[in-house]
Amino acid sequence: MVRIGLLGCGRIGQVHARSISQIEGAKVTAVADAFAEPAQALADRSAAQVLEPLALINSPEVDAIVIGTPTDTHYDLIKAAARAGKAIFCEKPVDLSADRIRDCIKVVERAAVPFLTAFNRRFDPNFADLQARLRQGQIGEVEIVTIQSRDPSPPPLSYIAGSGGLFRDMMIHDLDMARFLLGEELVRVYAVGSALVDPEIGHAGDVDTAAVTLTTTSGKICQITNSRRASYGYDQRIEVHGSGGMLRAENVLETTVELATASGFSRARAQHFFLDRYAAAYKAEMLHFIEAIAAGTDPSPNLHDGLRAQLLADAATLSLTEGTPVDLS
Amino acid sequence: MVRIGLLGCGRIGQVHARSISQIEGAKVTAVADAFAEPAQALADRSAAQVLEPLALINSPEVDAIVIGTPTDTHYDLIKAAARAGKAIFCEKPVDLSADRIRDCIKVVERAAVPFLTAFNRRFDPNFADLQARLRQGQIGEVEIVTIQSRDPSPPPLSYIAGSGGLFRDMMIHDLDMARFLLGEELVRVYAVGSALVDPEIGHAGDVDTAAVTLTTTSGKICQITNSRRASYGYDQRIEVHGSGGMLRAENVLETTVELATASGFSRARAQHFFLDRYAAAYKAEMLHFIEAIAAGTDPSPNLHDGLRAQLLADAATLSLTEGTPVDLS
Amino acid sequence: MVRIGLLGCGRIGQVHARSISQIEGAKVTAVADAFAEPAQALADRSAAQVLEPLALINSPEVDAIVIGTPTDTHYDLIKAAARAGKAIFCEKPVDLSADRIRDCIKVVERAAVPFLTAFNRRFDPNFADLQARLRQGQIGEVEIVTIQSRDPSPPPLSYIAGSGGLFRDMMIHDLDMARFLLGEELVRVYAVGSALVDPEIGHAGDVDTAAVTLTTTSGKICQITNSRRASYGYDQRIEVHGSGGMLRAENVLETTVELATASGFSRARAQHFFLDRYAAAYKAEMLHFIEAIAAGTDPSPNLHDGLRAQLLADAATLSLTEGTPVDLS
Amino acid sequence: MVRIGLLGCGRIGQVHARSISQIEGAKVTAVADAFAEPAQALADRSAAQVLEPLALINSPEVDAIVIGTPTDTHYDLIKAAARAGKAIFCEKPVDLSADRIRDCIKVVERAAVPFLTAFNRRFDPNFADLQARLRQGQIGEVEIVTIQSRDPSPPPLSYIAGSGGLFRDMMIHDLDMARFLLGEELVRVYAVGSALVDPEIGHAGDVDTAAVTLTTTSGKICQITNSRRASYGYDQRIEVHGSGGMLRAENVLETTVELATASGFSRARAQHFFLDRYAAAYKAEMLHFIEAIAAGTDPSPNLHDGLRAQLLADAATLSLTEGTPVDLS
Repeated sequence: MVRIGLLGCGRIGQVHARSISQIEGAKVTAVADAFAEPAQALADRSAAQVLEPLALINSPEVDAIVIGTPTDTHYDLIKAAARAGKAIFCEKPVDLSADRIRDCIKVVERAAVPFLTAFNRRFDPNFADLQARLRQGQIGEVEIVTIQSRDPSPPPLSYIAGSGGLFRDMMIHDLDMARFLLGEELVRVYAVGSALVDPEIGHAGDVDTAAVTLTTTSGKICQITNSRRASYGYDQRIEVHGSGGMLRAENVLETTVELATASGFSRARAQHFFLDRYAAAYKAEMLHFIEAIAAGTDPSPNLHDGLRAQLLADAATLSLTEGTPVDLS
Repeated sequence: MVRIGLLGCGRIGQVHARSISQIEGAKVTAVADAFAEPAQALADRSAAQVLEPLALINSPEVDAIVIGTPTDTHYDLIKAAARAGKAIFCEKPVDLSADRIRDCIKVVERAAVPFLTAFNRRFDPNFADLQARLRQGQIGEVEIVTIQSRDPSPPPLSYIAGSGGLFRDMMIHDLDMARFLLGEELVRVYAVGSALVDPEIGHAGDVDTAAVTLTTTSGKICQITNSRRASYGYDQRIEVHGSGGMLRAENVLETTVELATASGFSRARAQHFFLDRYAAAYKAEMLHFIEAIAAGTDPSPNLHDGLRAQLLADAATLSLTEGTPVDLS
Repeated sequence: MVRIGLLGCGRIGQVHARSISQIEGAKVTAVADAFAEPAQALADRSAAQVLEPLALINSPEVDAIVIGTPTDTHYDLIKAAARAGKAIFCEKPVDLSADRIRDCIKVVERAAVPFLTAFNRRFDPNFADLQARLRQGQIGEVEIVTIQSRDPSPPPLSYIAGSGGLFRDMMIHDLDMARFLLGEELVRVYAVGSALVDPEIGHAGDVDTAAVTLTTTSGKICQITNSRRASYGYDQRIEVHGSGGMLRAENVLETTVELATASGFSRARAQHFFLDRYAAAYKAEMLHFIEAIAAGTDPSPNLHDGLRAQLLADAATLSLTEGTPVDLS
Repeated sequence: MVRIGLLGCGRIGQVHARSISQIEGAKVTAVADAFAEPAQALADRSAAQVLEPLALINSPEVDAIVIGTPTDTHYDLIKAAARAGKAIFCEKPVDLSADRIRDCIKVVERAAVPFLTAFNRRFDPNFADLQARLRQGQIGEVEIVTIQSRDPSPPPLSYIAGSGGLFRDMMIHDLDMARFLLGEELVRVYAVGSALVDPEIGHAGDVDTAAVTLTTTSGKICQITNSRRASYGYDQRIEVHGSGGMLRAENVLETTVELATASGFSRARAQHFFLDRYAAAYKAEMLHFIEAIAAGTDPSPNLHDGLRAQLLADAATLSLTEGTPVDLS
């Protein structure tokens, strides 16, 4: 039985608690949150204790820590958990500073504890199947990756301010996906972007519409576009062109119903809410984490993956400012 | 809190227990099964008691009975539950004899207890959405209903013997779906069928490939085909043609991934296993049952729907034998 | 060079003239029509002579006759053309009377001239590809054929009167398609139908919405539905279920454009006009006819195919009247 | 009657001759080619004269010139035709040098003759429909354009040498399409590329896999990827994301047939040969040219469009060499 301590009882913490409740051989034994009420509610549902964060981390009843607290708290919690010898599952982004992630890597590697950076999309059954087919060579050598990623609507302006900007907050998922699919490091980034959805986002120093072109040393290419607006749902598509063909994953629609009238044929929107769209992915990533702990293997993606995605997001942010491509060492 | 007693702890009973565990305001308090082991396992998972069937039905800790036992036991259990004043959720078919279903109707109506005949497909999000659009008039008056329903592979011959035949065992779902979509009674049935999948099924007196044409008094038409074989998955499609257009629900594929090579474009199979394909439907039908109990409304489909589907299946069976259309009064 | 005499310069005659003009090794050398103007216009465009029908049939400048005149004139023209030793391409239906088609068979076989019954849909690239894949065994043995065939809107009532009824006028195409796909004769027919589109069609003694179930001696099944109304275009779909899988041909849409908005994803209507939908089929059937003449092989489908489709349509018409299945010898 | 002189009787010249033969009110009256045989064959089929190029241009029997000769001859032919006061239809690219296109503009504008730069894809029914819907505002303001354009296989190395490079030879179509869809000038280009398909293409100084990111003054974004290889057909897709939704045009498949087996669902390849894929586009562009002449209106796209696409291709070529974005004035 893997006994889990949950740090953060907000929306994503509740998602993880539900996943754990459906996994044989794991249970939530302790929870912590800055607010008493959600902590108690989740503790009741899970038959778990409410503890202070550090008490939870050091509790002998806890084998693994799931971190779903605000980003700026990750750094200290990771270090404490690593020192306590606990396995760590940490929401993305690990931290907005690459240097602080490097610090975490040192501490975690010294402690030799399992660490999962929770890039949930790698665990989506569609994207995971696509990547498995790539590894099986179904389309030969990868040549071009194209990712379309668009949110149904922009977050509140208050959120934008502390988000680190679109590349670190939103595109980081796509940058990680590009690495996952290419199997080779991206070394050059060129970014463009503008505030077409809401000029206030521009005034806040960020963009809401962006695109990057990335390349690898061997000449493979990746293009990504992001928008903070998509009337037709949460647009999440990837396409990989290889020497032998193409693989793509289309959007997940709300139903399979098709209506035909004098206006033509119409189907439902894409699923709108990210928790619905990635429901299976959240379960699968938690299962992977728990199975890795049980088997004594390393979870993946790890902290190095978290760092690399962050460096790509930093480079894209710099490229946008400078107007030139930026190289990663 | 609706307290539920579960009769039958086999595969479908476990599905219902899982659904109940995810519904706020309901819990399994008692379970019963002919075999001790699955009963105890399910009781442990649900923190419920193991009881004898009649003790369970009459327990003051039980408000509603979910019947997932073999078909030939339904009759007695329904009558006992009705007399005990309990709400009843009964797996399909209610019984293989229409007369015995009529008996059940009398007892249940006298007791005035809520009753749901568990035609799960009505609760599939795709089919339910299609039917809701019909009721909204999106394609005007319904004229033609076409249903394709094919199992991935035939059941064991031992199962065929006691199944009542393809029309009562398999097509009954489609006959209920036809009624659900047409909103008007089907009054004439013509059936054809043969044993193309396995001649042994023919020797056992049944068919594995069948089609019916049904009509309503006003001249609406329904066509259904069934096969006990479909290499590409559990084929479950419906299409409704109306005065103003068409609505159809396509199969649910395993993933959204598409592969393009010199052979063309290919996508995954349809989901194969009925418990996967109808996972959302099983949850939704249980939620409907529990909400109806809580609200004091009548669940639907009810015993009359169960009877009518049985009469259509009986008529199709007779039509096949006689080689002529059969009228229902 | 195959020199062709065209009988009938109406809409379908003009289609055939255009097809011939695009085929190397064939040309229209003579035309005939009851009306002078369209005959002259077509003659001008084709650099052909205008002749009287019998003069055209017997002209030494004519090797093959294309009959696109009203159905009731086919019988005499076929016999005259056969006696003149000319190859014959005849629009469907050959005749509304099976006995008269049998007469034609005698005359044509005695004369040993090539004869094509113009069931154009067999030459549609989609349906032809589907049938070729069946013959290659891509889905094993055929078990169930399902055909959906719906016109965008009903013909004028005046047309209905002389049409022979829906089964002989419209469904005959689908009955021929069923034979083409099954590769085995259909021996029993059960038909239902009603006038749901326009009650006036019912008053005229016909139906506008119909369905048949057909069976072969070995137990294969075919279901066909027809409607005289389809807001979303000319609905022409076929699906074949076999022991190893399924093959289907979907509708041809007007464009490949997809629109995504808050209402969902929408695509264009199906092509509406039968001459557009089957443009490639008309060319391919004429090419087949001319190539068969040039090669000295028998065109297909032939007069026997025309007869068999007519007998099925007759049987369906009788089944509708009698309310029982009808057997073909 | 618009009388047309055809310069160049190769593959594309023959396509144009066939289009003209199907347009009422136009005919080919004269043809010219460097080789006698194809010129005579085409003259025979069109009942036209064979003339020397300059004689053809100046013939009083010729109202309009269609230029389908090698690129390096366009410049002189355009100037001669303009001076002769003839309407001009010229294959793309107009010339590989932007300065020489500017020269042509001067001459053509002085002569005030109609001029069509034959970017055939604008006339594809799918892309034209998509663009018309954009202009109707179906998705609001355009924000992101994504174009995937991939040839089935690379041209011979001998062709690469004189092609001007991938951006001028292949991507120029997509650059024109981007302008067509955006309705606003692209002012900055960043290009990446490599020789992944055939290293010999790299040794010849060109790339076979490329991507560009372009931006407009107002912040709209376009991404294009090109490859000289696509096993699944001639990959031609465009997608436009706007403030109110998305419009996309998918590939045109060879048939509508779908096969379902234990391996899943598969459809045909995309049409492979560009003359098949764009057959309707070639007809529509010629019809547009002839209708514009008849109506006295300006054909579109014109020489300025040809120049602008060339400048974008030049900028992309420079960007690839320099490794930085390039601005257009």
